[in-house]
Amino acid sequence: MSQSSPLYRLRWWFSLLLVLPLLAQAAVPLPSWKDGPSRQAILAFVSAVTDEGSKDYVPPAERIAVFDNDGTLWSEQPMYFEVLFALDEVKRLAPQHPEWKEQQPFKAVLEGDQKALADSGMEGLMKIIAATHSGMATEAFIDQSRSWLANAVHPKSGKPYTEMVFQPMLELLRFLRANDFKTYIVSGGEVAFMRAFAEEVYGIPPEQVIGTTFQSEFQDQDGKLSIQRLPQLAHNDDGPGKPVSIEQVIGRRPILAFGNSDGDLQMLQWTMAGRGKRFAGLVHHTDAKREWAYDRESKVGRLDKALDAAKQGNWTVVDMAKEWSRVYPFENN
Amino acid sequence: MSQSSPLYRLRWWFSLLLVLPLLAQAAVPLPSWKDGPSRQAILAFVSAVTDEGSKDYVPPAERIAVFDNDGTLWSEQPMYFEVLFALDEVKRLAPQHPEWKEQQPFKAVLEGDQKALADSGMEGLMKIIAATHSGMATEAFIDQSRSWLANAVHPKSGKPYTEMVFQPMLELLRFLRANDFKTYIVSGGEVAFMRAFAEEVYGIPPEQVIGTTFQSEFQDQDGKLSIQRLPQLAHNDDGPGKPVSIEQVIGRRPILAFGNSDGDLQMLQWTMAGRGKRFAGLVHHTDAKREWAYDRESKVGRLDKALDAAKQGNWTVVDMAKEWSRVYPFENN
Repeated sequence: MSQSSPLYRLRWWFSLLLVLPLLAQAAVPLPSWKDGPSRQAILAFVSAVTDEGSKDYVPPAERIAVFDNDGTLWSEQPMYFEVLFALDEVKRLAPQHPEWKEQQPFKAVLEGDQKALADSGMEGLMKIIAATHSGMATEAFIDQSRSWLANAVHPKSGKPYTEMVFQPMLELLRFLRANDFKTYIVSGGEVAFMRAFAEEVYGIPPEQVIGTTFQSEFQDQDGKLSIQRLPQLAHNDDGPGKPVSIEQVIGRRPILAFGNSDGDLQMLQWTMAGRGKRFAGLVHHTDAKREWAYDRESKVGRLDKALDAAKQGNWTVVDMAKEWSRVYPFENN
Repeated sequence: MSQSSPLYRLRWWFSLLLVLPLLAQAAVPLPSWKDGPSRQAILAFVSAVTDEGSKDYVPPAERIAVFDNDGTLWSEQPMYFEVLFALDEVKRLAPQHPEWKEQQPFKAVLEGDQKALADSGMEGLMKIIAATHSGMATEAFIDQSRSWLANAVHPKSGKPYTEMVFQPMLELLRFLRANDFKTYIVSGGEVAFMRAFAEEVYGIPPEQVIGTTFQSEFQDQDGKLSIQRLPQLAHNDDGPGKPVSIEQVIGRRPILAFGNSDGDLQMLQWTMAGRGKRFAGLVHHTDAKREWAYDRESKVGRLDKALDAAKQGNWTVVDMAKEWSRVYPFENN
């Protein structure tokens, strides 16, 4: 066919029509964010710090972005997913621990006694976390975390937990990385549990995952080397623990931070208190239909003081119900 | 001038003669390494793990290289440079601590009493380190470290400490990064002290510096935020502490490790015990003329067990005197 024939030209135009929407979609950043105040604030911030001619320009090496995980990158209801993992682990490990039948809080877990479990409080929870997260090599723990994540499903959605991540936040992570940001997780979750899925699900490599840590010990048993996890906490990466771990591990102050609860307050404050242009964001869970709606009164992911700080400081508060056109990747758009 | 004129051609050839040696130098990796067994082992290793067709290929994300600092990237005689910093700091801070005049080990430092200082042992040293490394915000400590590094000179060479870095190791760091390795420091040195110069001197950013850490605390004094350094150690990054911090901070096992003393033994073992092709290197201080010569009997940077392990495991032991054509950048080549 001649390149000047009418048919050829028609096909050429037709191809273009097919390709154009794809090009447009690729070109529009943050497609699952409605064009509301949060999306505009993010775009304006990234534009300002990446424009070499701007007074707010930040060199790539200093473009550190930190994200809380539970409630910020994935859901956290009816309970932090890692706690649901720990409860399942208690059941799986019970045959090796006959003493748990008579020992709280393990007895409560095994008998499904919600009241006794709640009564055991934070101390009980820490016992459950320690019993299920220590006493093995890190590699074995990560394998077990992956095995649970591959098989367990969420009680409400029936979906694997790793699918209950927020599509708009996945897009935000990608958008920041495309603009030479280094994206970190800084979370109360245990670091090895998060590393079990963060690279595959969020594109965040192990060395950019910061979290709660257990003490651990290098062991050499007749030449077989391992790092054994001990039951004592080394660092609790919540609240004021977050800026502390950011300083210890990253050694630079972030220019962007995203959280969703009072546990993120100090990380957000620390980020905003640096020199130059900065961004603080909160995911506000306002969507009882597609996700959950909770804030000041919630036991999990309480957002109270940080919401006040956001209003005072003019931080970006994302109204999930109004500003996200899609919550989870599995939703039809 | 015509391009075919003899003069033009002469000038053209002359330019080429001037440029050729520069091109050759740029093309040869590790120019300060003589073409001995260590250089060959490094080149063979990097070639194997970066060749996509090789059975030993390692994807870029997993190319983690860890380096001890004292004695591996810079000198450590007559004493770790950070200890010399701490001793100078005791003198600088003495007016604010009149009690030190009567208190060991500070009294010994102020009076220059080497014997009393040596008698105070490891415990005395830790007191000096804690007193000079804590009680301020991290930013202030880094400023003070930089100020010392900018002004202090080494007692033997008369050079600033940051010039007493090993030229062949600078070249190795650059060569590895050019081959998509991520280069880390993993050192017994305190992390913030090393971050004060690691980026400028080694090209290693703060988030790739791992070291000994002090506990620290987030403070909010009427809205003025800071991270205050406390006198208690959080992590001692020496010996078995090195694989532990590698696991906690990086979460991946290195494929290359370089050290120079028994404090690096476990890091080297941990690196070599992984699957696939790996590299372990030791800088052997054999050069009393250009640097220092010491190993099994040295109080600083003792290399004894790790030297045996290197022989058993066929690790690369760099004979500084024989294999480095230049030790420091300031030497004439």
